[in-house]
Amino acid sequence: MAHSVARSARRADARQNAEKIVRAAIACLGRSPEASINDIAQEAGVGRVTLYGHFPSREALVEAALVRLLAEGDEVLEAIDLTGDPRDGLRALMESGWLLIAQAASVLQAAQAVLPPGRVQELHAKPEQRVHDLVCQGQAEGVFRADIPADLLTSVLHHILHGAAADVATGRLDTTDAPRFVAEMALAVCAVPTAKHHHAAKPR
Amino acid sequence: MAHSVARSARRADARQNAEKIVRAAIACLGRSPEASINDIAQEAGVGRVTLYGHFPSREALVEAALVRLLAEGDEVLEAIDLTGDPRDGLRALMESGWLLIAQAASVLQAAQAVLPPGRVQELHAKPEQRVHDLVCQGQAEGVFRADIPADLLTSVLHHILHGAAADVATGRLDTTDAPRFVAEMALAVCAVPTAKHHHAAKPR
Repeated sequence: MAHSVARSARRADARQNAEKIVRAAIACLGRSPEASINDIAQEAGVGRVTLYGHFPSREALVEAALVRLLAEGDEVLEAIDLTGDPRDGLRALMESGWLLIAQAASVLQAAQAVLPPGRVQELHAKPEQRVHDLVCQGQAEGVFRADIPADLLTSVLHHILHGAAADVATGRLDTTDAPRFVAEMALAVCAVPTAKHHHAAKPR
Repeated sequence: MAHSVARSARRADARQNAEKIVRAAIACLGRSPEASINDIAQEAGVGRVTLYGHFPSREALVEAALVRLLAEGDEVLEAIDLTGDPRDGLRALMESGWLLIAQAASVLQAAQAVLPPGRVQELHAKPEQRVHDLVCQGQAEGVFRADIPADLLTSVLHHILHGAAADVATGRLDTTDAPRFVAEMALAVCAVPTAKHHHAAKPR
């Protein structure tokens, strides 16, 4: 009995340590994408041995930090009401998505540097699916263009979001304007072409 | 006299070798972004020593291959008539730009893997400037939206192009449709919002 109490206390400690380490990784990598295992262990107040007991490599820790940020981001996106006009939904998703990406930019950069190609994209499957579903719904309701596949529109929205985050990082884009601009461009890409625009687009 | 003839013949040989090596690098890296120095030397029909005499490292050679493709691509873009409606010009630039990027995709991937961050972007300064100038011209003529800075529109066009190239690489986008879709989305991003669209975009 005393044995099992001690074991369960040890387990709770371990969980707390793992949690402290992930939070420290998010903080350190958020300040610098090159933050080292030592920086993170120090921030978490644990030794390297304890840290390696939870995360066998820097890659594993970087991935855990990104997975956590994506899960928290997904809760924010989950709370957005997407039952009305898909255009309103898309605007809200893009604005929130942009903020989340801007906050996660440094961790994302760290992940892109160490995770295998395609892995970061894979981890985005859930938010990506959310946008994809909304695009399909908008196409079905006739408020988004259906002459371009939903897959491609979704992918371009992804590139607009991440491109804008990169532009903020390089100082090309101001953080204040970014969410509105990003949403405007997303809506422009998805809008059903008007006769006027269509004419302008096909003069050859 | 005989001396200087011999020297100039040696120089011509050296130029020919350098040229053969760059062409071989484009061919090998075009087949696989991981192509090695040995693969490239073999394709060029020169020894490793000769190759290293011209290019001190694999990075230098990858960069030379990309610089060459960009210079050739720029000649293609240079030939496009941009004096008419900026919308026609943008469509033509995007369609050609897309083809050039699709052809260079594997070399670009090799470059992104070994060159310092930002270097690939730097090398794109010339085509980027071409698009930027056209966007400014369209804004001045009132056919492109001026409520979003030309810098940001240009950057989004860049992300649409490169994103589409990545989507073709992963099989998400078909090569046949890509140029038209890319041009359509670029025109949509730059178009002056119509009253209808604008209303849809600002319902909050």
